[in-house]
Amino acid sequence: MKQTVLLTGALGKVGRTILSNLYENYIWRLLDNRSPGEDFPHEVIVADILDSSAIVEAVKGVSSIIHLAGDPNTSASWQSVLKNNIEGTQILLEAAVNANVEKFIFASSNHAVGHYETNSTPTLPESNVHFPLDGTELPRPGNIYGVSKAFGEILGRYYHDEYGISVLCVRIGNLNGETPPVDYARGQSMWLSNRDCAHLFDRCLQSNYDYEIIYGVSNNDGNYYSLGRAKDILDYNPVDNSAEHVS
Amino acid sequence: MKQTVLLTGALGKVGRTILSNLYENYIWRLLDNRSPGEDFPHEVIVADILDSSAIVEAVKGVSSIIHLAGDPNTSASWQSVLKNNIEGTQILLEAAVNANVEKFIFASSNHAVGHYETNSTPTLPESNVHFPLDGTELPRPGNIYGVSKAFGEILGRYYHDEYGISVLCVRIGNLNGETPPVDYARGQSMWLSNRDCAHLFDRCLQSNYDYEIIYGVSNNDGNYYSLGRAKDILDYNPVDNSAEHVS
Repeated sequence: MKQTVLLTGALGKVGRTILSNLYENYIWRLLDNRSPGEDFPHEVIVADILDSSAIVEAVKGVSSIIHLAGDPNTSASWQSVLKNNIEGTQILLEAAVNANVEKFIFASSNHAVGHYETNSTPTLPESNVHFPLDGTELPRPGNIYGVSKAFGEILGRYYHDEYGISVLCVRIGNLNGETPPVDYARGQSMWLSNRDCAHLFDRCLQSNYDYEIIYGVSNNDGNYYSLGRAKDILDYNPVDNSAEHVS
Repeated sequence: MKQTVLLTGALGKVGRTILSNLYENYIWRLLDNRSPGEDFPHEVIVADILDSSAIVEAVKGVSSIIHLAGDPNTSASWQSVLKNNIEGTQILLEAAVNANVEKFIFASSNHAVGHYETNSTPTLPESNVHFPLDGTELPRPGNIYGVSKAFGEILGRYYHDEYGISVLCVRIGNLNGETPPVDYARGQSMWLSNRDCAHLFDRCLQSNYDYEIIYGVSNNDGNYYSLGRAKDILDYNPVDNSAEHVS
């Protein structure tokens, strides 16, 4: 039987990537605060993540949630992330445990640890070494958007510990489309190809876990995020490597 | 020359403990959202931590801040900690870096890691073993108040990395007055005596650091928080032990 999944922020880049690859595999409930354009082939619940009563309705009968909604701008203001990312995630998690949702998959970000790159040894990512960022390190957000993502990880930890809901935080790398970014070494190191992205979220929906923080990147040369935990608990097997696209 | 220090939440338990021991050592600027009663001997700026313009005034010319203001209730609601603890800390940190404040000492809490005790091996605190909670572990808040404290630690990390302000997060144990709590093993394990509390915050004001998370507890038998980092970077030397008070 197909799992029913609520996908928040369904019209964003990650949401569209997931849907274009996995639409047939799940019964989707799509939510976004924007109305879909004519290019979008699926029905969407148009509601803001801050609209508590709409969220309570949206989670009913759902077994898993992929939570992508929020301000995705890496230069987002404090006021925006406070509402859209911090409050929004709390509203959704609260609704999820009240509705006995089993899995909460949270779109965290590489920006939750962006400041490891500013004054660490070795210098990243140019050094091309395997740097031991594996999800056990304390957050060091590179911007206020990253602060809001690190907050979501901690809130998820609390909701898991307190209520038992399975929570998986994916520190998503650089989702750039079919090919890695050009002239941007950091983005190449943490590129997440479209098919690896879809495969990863599929594994998040299919696997069992308590609480986890993993990195969502392809199998790139120069990657300084560990794929170990994602491989171990999710059986994530990325097939792409930015080095094969960038000369 | 005496350092000028802003003490927020000055009328609370920690604030009064600091002032009654260290009043002569610093030039204090005291802030609280309550008016002091007749028992309180010092002048207080009565302003809410959410009153941005009052906060901007309060930080002017200050070299250090001890930030105690916030909802201290361990069963505080999300709406309360969202405003008083999360927003309040952001307003103060933003004002602090704009005013070139050098040190920000943040009252975090043992509740930021309270859930380590629920399903860890060995069981805490009854096991009486030294459990390796030393400030390098990821937060596991035991309540939504603890979530807000873990948030403050991450926000402090960001402000340090981004703007260079020294930030020290003190995960305060159980401040119970002159003697440890009775019939409460957890509180005895993490007791912070009044004089150790004052000594600790004195050391926070006198020492140099970049960004740190330390535990603020006395030298108790059965303590399962490491004092190592506080000793190393602050030269913190607690003199009290709850076991000497509890039979």
